[in-house]
Amino acid sequence: MTTNIAYDQTVAQRMNHRERMVSSAVALFRERGVAGTALSDVVEHSGAPRGSIYHYFPDGKAQLAREATAHAGRLLDELITRWLARHGPAATIERIVEMFRRQLRDTDFASGCPVAAGALESGDAPAARATAGEAFASWETTLSTALQAHGHAPHRADTLASLIVCAIEGAIIVAKAQRDMRPLDRVAEELTTLLRAEE
Amino acid sequence: MTTNIAYDQTVAQRMNHRERMVSSAVALFRERGVAGTALSDVVEHSGAPRGSIYHYFPDGKAQLAREATAHAGRLLDELITRWLARHGPAATIERIVEMFRRQLRDTDFASGCPVAAGALESGDAPAARATAGEAFASWETTLSTALQAHGHAPHRADTLASLIVCAIEGAIIVAKAQRDMRPLDRVAEELTTLLRAEE
Repeated sequence: MTTNIAYDQTVAQRMNHRERMVSSAVALFRERGVAGTALSDVVEHSGAPRGSIYHYFPDGKAQLAREATAHAGRLLDELITRWLARHGPAATIERIVEMFRRQLRDTDFASGCPVAAGALESGDAPAARATAGEAFASWETTLSTALQAHGHAPHRADTLASLIVCAIEGAIIVAKAQRDMRPLDRVAEELTTLLRAEE
Repeated sequence: MTTNIAYDQTVAQRMNHRERMVSSAVALFRERGVAGTALSDVVEHSGAPRGSIYHYFPDGKAQLAREATAHAGRLLDELITRWLARHGPAATIERIVEMFRRQLRDTDFASGCPVAAGALESGDAPAARATAGEAFASWETTLSTALQAHGHAPHRADTLASLIVCAIEGAIIVAKAQRDMRPLDRVAEELTTLLRAEE
């Protein structure tokens, strides 16, 4: 029993290190980009033992970037799915925008969208870009499905879903560059007006 | 006279080196990001003499990133201004999107928006980010002015202008990640429908 508890604790601690490294990677990539983040920064941020990163991520930064992007994409998809079911499309857009607004405010405009960080990777971690593409596609599908349930024809639901994802992603980048929430405010106003006019 | 010609040629060549370095920086940054581009890559791409980069850009990468971002922002603003005057807002959006579509097609989805590259810089070249913010603002102002000339009230013209800039910037990133033109096609369809419905 003692052996099992010790074993379980070791496994739990390892899982913990691995998960902590993924969430540290998400936090650092969204602030500095993948190319701008060193693996040693991730190790330090996560508090994991030095040298452990290649134990958990044998392919190094490429693997970590891919997993961090997928992880962030999944979390956001779950959130959007829940908000759409509870509040409908227009109010969901307000919530998504408010979430990113708060993130930008809390980090002095440093921390943007973690999936966009993967999307912008072209050097060490090309697979992160494809993973980001899949995450964007999953949000588009989730939004389109909800828009169809709210009466939009399939093609229109698809184009609106892409507009929502692209406009919010772009607004985060423009807001960061301008150190100003206006792009997010304006995009939210246009998108919610558009959706409410057709509800 | 001979001296003057020789002097003029030297000045022209220097200008040429400097300009070539800026356009090489634009080309490389939009493909690899600022953090993913080494100064030596810019020198090599431009064909300028090794070691000359600190002669022209004493602040190094920070200065080059700032100038490349400003240069790209100005060129795009001039283009948008000309298209708006000749073709009006909806057709201008189609042209902007077609320009980026062609760029993505010609580079196998590698080369996105050069101003976004500056916007995403957080490490070596923080001033590039602010310069990108100014470029985005100049496009927003150019578009808003044209939308007001086409009958939109000032506040609405501002929100529409931001939506256009943010949606296209986001669509370029999503299209790159998905290796698919659909995000750009869909955003163009939604934006032009929106503008034409109100013309």
